[in-house]
Formats: sequence, C-alpha cells, structure tokens
Amino acid sequence: MFTVGIDLGGTNIVSAVVNDKYEIVATSKTATNSPRSYREIFDDIIRITLDAIEKAGLTADDIDSVGLGTPGTVNGDGIIEFANNLGFNNVPARQILIDGLGIHNVYVENDANCAALGEAYAGVGHGAKNFVAVTLGTGVGSGIIADGKIVNGVNFAGGECGHMVIVLDGEQCTCGRKGCWEAYASATALINQTKKAMEENPDSVMHELARQEGKVSGKTSFDAMRRGDIAGIHVVERYIKYVSCGLINIVNALQPEIICVGGGICNEGDTLIKPLRRYVQAERYSIHSKIQTKIVKAELGNDAGVIGAAILGKVKE
Amino acid sequence: MFTVGIDLGGTNIVSAVVNDKYEIVATSKTATNSPRSYREIFDDIIRITLDAIEKAGLTADDIDSVGLGTPGTVNGDGIIEFANNLGFNNVPARQILIDGLGIHNVYVENDANCAALGEAYAGVGHGAKNFVAVTLGTGVGSGIIADGKIVNGVNFAGGECGHMVIVLDGEQCTCGRKGCWEAYASATALINQTKKAMEENPDSVMHELARQEGKVSGKTSFDAMRRGDIAGIHVVERYIKYVSCGLINIVNALQPEIICVGGGICNEGDTLIKPLRRYVQAERYSIHSKIQTKIVKAELGNDAGVIGAAILGKVKE
Repeated sequence: MFTVGIDLGGTNIVSAVVNDKYEIVATSKTATNSPRSYREIFDDIIRITLDAIEKAGLTADDIDSVGLGTPGTVNGDGIIEFANNLGFNNVPARQILIDGLGIHNVYVENDANCAALGEAYAGVGHGAKNFVAVTLGTGVGSGIIADGKIVNGVNFAGGECGHMVIVLDGEQCTCGRKGCWEAYASATALINQTKKAMEENPDSVMHELARQEGKVSGKTSFDAMRRGDIAGIHVVERYIKYVSCGLINIVNALQPEIICVGGGICNEGDTLIKPLRRYVQAERYSIHSKIQTKIVKAELGNDAGVIGAAILGKVKE
Repeated sequence: MFTVGIDLGGTNIVSAVVNDKYEIVATSKTATNSPRSYREIFDDIIRITLDAIEKAGLTADDIDSVGLGTPGTVNGDGIIEFANNLGFNNVPARQILIDGLGIHNVYVENDANCAALGEAYAGVGHGAKNFVAVTLGTGVGSGIIADGKIVNGVNFAGGECGHMVIVLDGEQCTCGRKGCWEAYASATALINQTKKAMEENPDSVMHELARQEGKVSGKTSFDAMRRGDIAGIHVVERYIKYVSCGLINIVNALQPEIICVGGGICNEGDTLIKPLRRYVQAERYSIHSKIQTKIVKAELGNDAGVIGAAILGKVKE
C-alpha cells in the first residue's frame, strides 16, 4: 500500500510517495515562489505529485490516500482558512487535490501537526500514541498527538504550546500576548538574548564568533560556552531553563510518552537535550511515577512533515 | 440501563445509581473517617454501594458498570498507586470492588478526571468531546477530555494544568516548582493575596469584612470590591488576570470546545466568569477563528464526581 505526502512550505513544495513502512520511495520538488495565486501553487502541487507517483512506477489507482501539510489553519472540510505567509484565505485545498489528482482520499492538515505525526509514527516516536513534537525555530511550533490522533481543537487551531505564557507580563510575543514560551525559547529569542548579553559583555568571545559567522546565530552562545566564555555560559544556561519550563508545563498537563524537540537549535544534540532532561526530571509533577515522559531529539528532520502528511489518511479515517 | 458511580473523598464517600440520562436515581453515603486502613474504607464503599442499588429497587445484575473516583494516581489496572491524603499505596481498588460487588465492569479513575467527565457528558458540556474542567479550590485541579476520552498520559498523572508555570521563578508552589498557575489562581492563593493587600492597606474594608466572617476567605476581596474598596478591586483584578492567564494557555494548547470553571470561587458567578471571558477573547491565539472555546461555570457542583464515575464504563470500554 502506498500513500502520498505533500509538504507545502514557504520556500519549497515537496511531494513524496511513501510505502507502508513509512519509507519515502519517490519524491518530486519545486520552489513555492510565493507570493503567487493559490491556483498557480496548486497546479504545481498536482504536477509534482503526479510526477512523484510516476517516478515510483505507480499510477493514481495505487495510491491509498493523499495528505497535504500546509502552514496556517485548516478546517474539517480541508479548506485552508488562513495561511498568513502564503497569503491564503479560504482555499479549498482538499477539493482542488481530489479534482486534480483523481484520488478521493485526500486530507489536509497544519504542517506542524503533520511533522508531529511523522515523528510519532515513523520517527523517534516509533508509533507512540501520546506524543508532543516541539520545534525550536523562528517561533516555537508544536503538535500534540493524543490517543493516536492530532489534537486539533474545536477550531483546528489547537497545539500552539509556544503561545503558553511562562512569564506573566514578560517579553512581547508576536501573537499579542506578553511572556509566551516562544518569546523565550525560540531560536529568534535565543539570538536576541545573545545580542543583549553581547552588549552587556563587550569582552565576550561571542563578538569574535559573530564576526566570523557574519551574524549572531543560535549557535553563537553555544560555541562561546564551549570556549569557556562566562557570558555565553550564562546565555545558554538561561535559555535551557526557558525551554525546560515549557517542556515541564507540557509534561504536567499531558504526560505524553514522548516529547520530541526539533528545529535548528537541536543540532546542539546532547548539549541541549541532556540538561533539558535534568530540569524535567527535577521539576515534573509526576515525580513518583514509575513511567515518565521521554525527552528526545527529533530524528526525521525535514522529512517529518512530508511523511506525517502521508500518514494523515491512517489517523483521520 | 443503570450504572453506579462512587465518589471517594477525604471527608465523605458517596455511591449513586445513575440512569442512562445521567440522572441520579438513588444514593447512599458515609463518612470516610480517614485515616483508616483501605480494607475498612472499601468495606464501607461496598456496603453503601449495595445499599444504593437496593434503594434504586435494583440488583447487581441490573448494573452495567461501576466507576470509582478517588484522589491520587490510578494505573491502568485500577490500582490506586498513591493517594497521599488517604494514606493509600498500591491499593487494588478495581479487584476489591469486583470481588465485593459481584459486578465485573469496574473502572477506577482520579477524582478530578471523573468530575471533568461528569461536567463534559452530563453537565455544562452537554456531551462535548473536547473539554477541560478547572477547579479553583485549595489547589487548581483540572481534567482534560480529548476526543471523548480522559487524557491520562503515559503514567496516569496527566491533566495537572494547575502545575504549569505562568511566572518563571515566581511564588513557591506545593509541588516544588516556582510560579505554578496554582500558586496564583487557587482559592488559597487568593486568600494569601488578600492578606498581603490587607497588610499593605490598613484602611481597607477587607479588615472589617474578615472580622465579620471570622477569617479571610476567597470572598473577602470580592465583597470589598462590591463596596468600592480600592485595595479589594486591585486584588480581584489581579486574581482574575492570573486565572485568565492559565485559561488562555489551555485554550492555545488544546482549543477545547468548553473550559468549565468550578470550585468555591465560582460562587461569584458572572463577577468572575465575565471578565475571564474578556481576557480570553482578547489574548487567545485563535483570534481569527469563527469557532472559539466557551468559558463557562461548572453546573453539577459536588455531583460532578459521582456522575463522572458512573460514566467511566462508557468512555473506557
């Protein structure tokens, strides 16, 4: 049995044929070239999807279901109600794909939820039914899987753990609230924290590191820490405390089997994950329980979204 | 079809026969008289349950399932692993009830989760499948229903939204963390906030109100506010902001159909609920969604737990 997953991103669109072991057997890719009309974008999506199916040596009849992961809010009819960064408003994605591909089992879902599904079923979750994926990127994205299903909420806007306040009246968040987890734990926030520490510490090695890289990045403070820089150590320690605060909040509310942490900052690997585990271990409410939530690094990388989209048919039927 | 719900509380034990409209048709009650051995307590539970069944004019054969709501952590085998305030440790509650009642469909669950289930199915939720119940009492209790099922988590300790930090490094919480929602939004926290404001404001009417009532209570600041007392107004406004912060966190993470708010403080009714709704409306992430989480007052009161326990058989099968 084969399914198709499509990952509609701000930069690229990827379509992949996936087998029943969740392995990608063929892909096709194109640039999103946003802003464009949704009709142009969906023409490209249909074209590369048919191309991927052909590359796999299959026809549309061999495809059990098609899933599309997209930024924004997707309602129960597969309509993309609102996707800010693509300029989409009420785009009938599901119907367009049914008509264009001649395949009837088509599912559309938010991309962060697809990535969570991919990691839960095919990645580090190994089929975990209660799973949360957190992505430390430009923002803090998250997707919640409960009892094997995506937690969409009543309006398909659920799973925004990045917009839980951890510091009442704290840093301004892009969502309008003050003190959201995202405003402290995203890569963007880490870069701001690094810049502030650099201003306050003109002698820090972070200045030299930033010059070498041509910018302050999410790596700057970690690299400085590795060189014994006190200001860098302080930034990293504080950042890890921010990240862990939100993780413990999720553990206490949901006690998932696994929380997987992804995004660029995770390239730090155990330097990030191990202290996060120590914080969670020390502070979780379930301190006496024999079984505890595992904190792990995401393993599928960019493939999580496209594989998760290919799995949508299994969890939504 | 009839089921039995049992609410094992720190003070009383209530057993109720419930019909398929979730109506209580007969009850029997006894004092918990804790601390006692679990064997003595369960002998009483069995006695009052058989009594309630008899009062309903039924026999054990007429009872489809039995549910027990208990404080503490209950594992998947119906064993109460740990219930601090009853002194319970690894009590095989399910098996004791099966043996004692001669009924085989027996389910055991945490009491806050039972109360959430009761409100979701038989109370203010009117059958809502995605529902969160929050209780502002000595602590901040909560139960999460997702897709009609209780979110227990991997270790049956899930649903502790009261122990999500909203003020990093803030007030010490009983759980060991600093800045938990419970440390700001519980009735206990409100009383502490009231006492602090009274110290700072020797002329506040709250002193007179507390003398009249014989103590500072969760009502003191609300009553003072109604009499135009500035310090009282300030306490209430700040408290409502604390409560709403946690509610918005839950909305953003889960977007449930309904969050119901219960506990003693809710006797304030619209004085509490209306400003909470205004905060949630202003700050929720899903600001553009047509459908939004409803914030409502719990309606079943003390019956929520026993009715929820009686429903366990339906949601756990």
